[in-house]
Amino acid sequence: MIGVGVIGCGYWGPNLVRNFARNERSQIIGVCDARYERAARVGAEYRVPLITDQPAKLFAAKEIQLIVIATPSFTHFDLAREALQAGKHLLVMKPLTTRVDHAEELVALAAQRGLVLGVDHTFVYTGAVRRIKELVDAGELGDIFYIDSVRINLGLFQSDVNVVWDLAPHDVSIIDYLLSGQEPREVSAIGAKHVGSPTENIAYLTLRYSDHLLAHIHVNWLAPAKVRRTIVGGSRRMVIYDDVEPSEKIKVYDKGVTISQRNGDTDAAYQMLVQYRSGDMSAPNLDPREALAVESNHIIDCILAGSQPLADGAAGLRVVRILELAQRSIEREGLPLKLQVGAPPAGRLSP
Amino acid sequence: MIGVGVIGCGYWGPNLVRNFARNERSQIIGVCDARYERAARVGAEYRVPLITDQPAKLFAAKEIQLIVIATPSFTHFDLAREALQAGKHLLVMKPLTTRVDHAEELVALAAQRGLVLGVDHTFVYTGAVRRIKELVDAGELGDIFYIDSVRINLGLFQSDVNVVWDLAPHDVSIIDYLLSGQEPREVSAIGAKHVGSPTENIAYLTLRYSDHLLAHIHVNWLAPAKVRRTIVGGSRRMVIYDDVEPSEKIKVYDKGVTISQRNGDTDAAYQMLVQYRSGDMSAPNLDPREALAVESNHIIDCILAGSQPLADGAAGLRVVRILELAQRSIEREGLPLKLQVGAPPAGRLSP
Amino acid sequence: MIGVGVIGCGYWGPNLVRNFARNERSQIIGVCDARYERAARVGAEYRVPLITDQPAKLFAAKEIQLIVIATPSFTHFDLAREALQAGKHLLVMKPLTTRVDHAEELVALAAQRGLVLGVDHTFVYTGAVRRIKELVDAGELGDIFYIDSVRINLGLFQSDVNVVWDLAPHDVSIIDYLLSGQEPREVSAIGAKHVGSPTENIAYLTLRYSDHLLAHIHVNWLAPAKVRRTIVGGSRRMVIYDDVEPSEKIKVYDKGVTISQRNGDTDAAYQMLVQYRSGDMSAPNLDPREALAVESNHIIDCILAGSQPLADGAAGLRVVRILELAQRSIEREGLPLKLQVGAPPAGRLSP
Amino acid sequence: MIGVGVIGCGYWGPNLVRNFARNERSQIIGVCDARYERAARVGAEYRVPLITDQPAKLFAAKEIQLIVIATPSFTHFDLAREALQAGKHLLVMKPLTTRVDHAEELVALAAQRGLVLGVDHTFVYTGAVRRIKELVDAGELGDIFYIDSVRINLGLFQSDVNVVWDLAPHDVSIIDYLLSGQEPREVSAIGAKHVGSPTENIAYLTLRYSDHLLAHIHVNWLAPAKVRRTIVGGSRRMVIYDDVEPSEKIKVYDKGVTISQRNGDTDAAYQMLVQYRSGDMSAPNLDPREALAVESNHIIDCILAGSQPLADGAAGLRVVRILELAQRSIEREGLPLKLQVGAPPAGRLSP
Repeated sequence: MIGVGVIGCGYWGPNLVRNFARNERSQIIGVCDARYERAARVGAEYRVPLITDQPAKLFAAKEIQLIVIATPSFTHFDLAREALQAGKHLLVMKPLTTRVDHAEELVALAAQRGLVLGVDHTFVYTGAVRRIKELVDAGELGDIFYIDSVRINLGLFQSDVNVVWDLAPHDVSIIDYLLSGQEPREVSAIGAKHVGSPTENIAYLTLRYSDHLLAHIHVNWLAPAKVRRTIVGGSRRMVIYDDVEPSEKIKVYDKGVTISQRNGDTDAAYQMLVQYRSGDMSAPNLDPREALAVESNHIIDCILAGSQPLADGAAGLRVVRILELAQRSIEREGLPLKLQVGAPPAGRLSP
Repeated sequence: MIGVGVIGCGYWGPNLVRNFARNERSQIIGVCDARYERAARVGAEYRVPLITDQPAKLFAAKEIQLIVIATPSFTHFDLAREALQAGKHLLVMKPLTTRVDHAEELVALAAQRGLVLGVDHTFVYTGAVRRIKELVDAGELGDIFYIDSVRINLGLFQSDVNVVWDLAPHDVSIIDYLLSGQEPREVSAIGAKHVGSPTENIAYLTLRYSDHLLAHIHVNWLAPAKVRRTIVGGSRRMVIYDDVEPSEKIKVYDKGVTISQRNGDTDAAYQMLVQYRSGDMSAPNLDPREALAVESNHIIDCILAGSQPLADGAAGLRVVRILELAQRSIEREGLPLKLQVGAPPAGRLSP
Repeated sequence: MIGVGVIGCGYWGPNLVRNFARNERSQIIGVCDARYERAARVGAEYRVPLITDQPAKLFAAKEIQLIVIATPSFTHFDLAREALQAGKHLLVMKPLTTRVDHAEELVALAAQRGLVLGVDHTFVYTGAVRRIKELVDAGELGDIFYIDSVRINLGLFQSDVNVVWDLAPHDVSIIDYLLSGQEPREVSAIGAKHVGSPTENIAYLTLRYSDHLLAHIHVNWLAPAKVRRTIVGGSRRMVIYDDVEPSEKIKVYDKGVTISQRNGDTDAAYQMLVQYRSGDMSAPNLDPREALAVESNHIIDCILAGSQPLADGAAGLRVVRILELAQRSIEREGLPLKLQVGAPPAGRLSP
Repeated sequence: MIGVGVIGCGYWGPNLVRNFARNERSQIIGVCDARYERAARVGAEYRVPLITDQPAKLFAAKEIQLIVIATPSFTHFDLAREALQAGKHLLVMKPLTTRVDHAEELVALAAQRGLVLGVDHTFVYTGAVRRIKELVDAGELGDIFYIDSVRINLGLFQSDVNVVWDLAPHDVSIIDYLLSGQEPREVSAIGAKHVGSPTENIAYLTLRYSDHLLAHIHVNWLAPAKVRRTIVGGSRRMVIYDDVEPSEKIKVYDKGVTISQRNGDTDAAYQMLVQYRSGDMSAPNLDPREALAVESNHIIDCILAGSQPLADGAAGLRVVRILELAQRSIEREGLPLKLQVGAPPAGRLSP
């Protein structure tokens, strides 16, 4: 039985509490929030023994093996470092940290102590994204040409982070997962601030992986309706993943184009022989389990097996690296910036 | 009764023939296509008196007052110039031309001869876009914060133009119309070529109008499903225009955010007081007429009244100016480029 | 070249004119409407030689081989009889007639004269319905359990027919086609009149084919949105046909249930072993041609080949038989009525 | 603090546990299931003090004031009677009982003992249905013409009840609520059994309230996709409630028809003057709270105030009365049956 302590009982934390409470191999030992009444509320619901506003009490509790950090992003690094130093396994909400060097330090520390460091890249644990990954890995989509991801809503304006750090981790982590940890060679981003917000509430990110592989992300807190749609365009098939759709979240289109170049033809306008393939669409049946149930169970597996999770510290670091670059590009009005990976990340992607 | 000659009987031309044939104030006198059999087919359907593969025969026909040009883009300029020189009124498919100087010359020529020069910015004539324009002009949306337009499909790959010149004229002309001809200060674009195509089949355009007003366009010939969705985000209300939706193409959301800055507060993280407004959505009843029926009727009105149409040569020129800049930005890997308007366009936007 | 005369230039007639004008093997010789100006309008659009308000002129025209009847239902019988007597092939809008004996007479007359008698069961010519028929015939759906069809809208209230005679011919003809002309053993229907209408504007029809095969139809002129959805439930697969959907009109679900009865079990509540199969959904690519284009071309084929069309007089008769019974059931407040087929229809279903 | 005991920890029970655990005015004292391991699982999640497979232990527990019954329908009556006799307030899942006389007895018993008797007509507590009720009561829809409700899915085949008793309670309770407890004068129903099921898996119910007011329900366990859509057609406005839609569950259409009868006109076919009104659609912003949270909180309010809930025993009885009649009509092949209300229900609808 894994003892779990959850720090941060605002919007997302209680979902983690619920999933670890429900799992038969874990139990919630403590909950913590800087606002005590929030910890008390969820603590009462699950009759949690230890309710506190002091993270240190959780780090000190021997019955706790796993610390879940669900606090604002800028606090992740300090809390995570302390937890690792106290010998606790970790699950940190996205983004792992708000600085690349911080993420690197956590990855190194977890590796050194032999502790599990998971990042809550929630979508990587959905039936939908896992199914797309299977299609990619099986070659069903052919070569990936582009990934286009839109994640917009009338979102909660936050004062400590902009929309890039708040929403884009979802898209970047999905793309990172689908591309097996491949990193883009160039990142550019453009954003805008509205209604007096000190931070960007709309942004467009472009990740250039190669001449033929482009990823593009639109994140927006000021959209009137919720759109969460990722298109993966491949040479053989194309996928639309619409997360708002209650059923049929993934549609696989057997559609495509092939072009033959005619030789010896002088008229440029008629040089191409384009063939269109417009076949059936199919919506595969998906694992319907809640992503957090899959994720919390997987973290428990990793702790018991001594392995690193699907979304590990290295994945968290790669995502932070892209976000930091996007942020710098926004500040330079959209200038494309090269990604430089000084040292390879300490961890590895567990496929 | 306005006599009409249509040049180009491929995909779009027959729709123009049908609409001018149906209008009680016009009749089709001649149809022309470089491939004679295409002209013959539509000519037989409407029992058109003059069927030819020689545009000159239409320019010479006295019964023809209006020439409609529905040929590939690169041929527009020469045909349009000849038609104007022959004293004919003109309706040219989008884009008006493929070069800014060509568009300028046509605008000047039409003005000099006192001829109508319409550009088939079809969407400007839809009930949906006209309704959004009314909302904008009435101040119902407040200040415009952003316009986000997506127009993707498994489109026809073309060898003479890329996806920017093929699809983006629709989005740029809608944006130009909604913003009453205001021009962006900066344009950037990024694109990619796939499956051996010599031209870009996917592209993202960013038009920066001011610090607070951003327009973004995603055009794509290699998408598995048809998406045509434009979001207009305003300070008071927001609109989603989904052209693929069979009914309720426009949804007006009474949603928004206001932020008050607290004074004298030292902790930046808690300085904002954000208020969300999440009211009803309404879908206004729209004029259901086919856009081409409205447009063809409007062109006839303009010829009879001696006025310029809603989408006139000046609008066509502004659109070409943006497309040309986007093209140059793509060639420089997304570098933002400033729009320089040497001389004001010769025409004016008829509101 | 088949010469065509169209009687009735209201809402639907011009669509027929357009399709026969476009077909390269037919031409419109004459158009007729009791309101001359309506005939004149469509006649001018296509420069039709003969424009009249006298059907007799079309019957007398030697260049006309095919008469299309697109007038109100109650006039079909007289016009159709005259046309057949004049030796013309016929395409009659749905319903064929408003009385069973009238339909029988027309079927007999056409057979006797060796003339084509087609009924405009438009949906039978759509790519969607033809594809479902292929699935049914190939056994892909297994045994058909039920067909549920909803066709509702804010429709045009008509004074001469109720919603059953106006809308249900579409559903009944689709069901008749899918079931290869099988006739129900019992029909019941219930309806209601509103807003002072002398005829029913909402109705529910139940067609009982066997203990295990039920068809149900909901037709409604007083619904706020357009719904046109037919579900075909089979033992192996199930189909949803949503005609309002712009793409993916047909979805084939690989879903189902099998139940094994356990023997020797005393507790009734646990006697069943139910197994659910919840596989993928697929949306087959469909023939995108307009149904009327397919239908008009097929009618021309039949005239040239001397064969009867897919939706022939016999199909038209079977549909009228069901509608008449439904009407009688409505008048008797929903009493289920047995279908009695005195004599087999003179024609046969051409598969 | 209200102590709660929940009997039945299968599919629905745990949702009740979760909501009463979360509510700050109640706590879960005991959980019970005939299969002990199911009680143990949810008991562990919430660290519930009393876990048992003996309902009697809950009835005996002094800390428990409210018993929630979430067991199969046929067990409701016995358990509910015992609970009331033990002096416990009650919340019973739908349908209240499987026989009218049983429901009558429970209503009488609760009234006699002064205990709260709530029925889990969940939808009555949704923001959507409450909003429609407000529109109806405010006269916004005018006179109600019809209510058409579809609730279909690939549902769980049950051996003890058919689809009418399983799904139709939702629709009947919504209709009962919208019509303020008005009872139909006649009920008819038709059903079919498939795949060897001993009970009906598809059924159509018609409730005739008056000449002008018809309700119709389609319930189906053998449908390939989930449809939950209720249309309320009124003389002034019409509503579509689509419960599967993630947002905009309610659409209010400002559409309608008015018909004037012309006097002294001899031609019946032109006697009607029909006027159509096709105005805007609006989707009101809804209370987003989970129905069970609203319901559980409301039950607590009722216990504390000594009042009966919105969905009380009388509502539960009216629903059972309709279901029992529908069942009898199915057995008589769709024969319309009159509803006879021997004695008025003991309770009253709390509006």
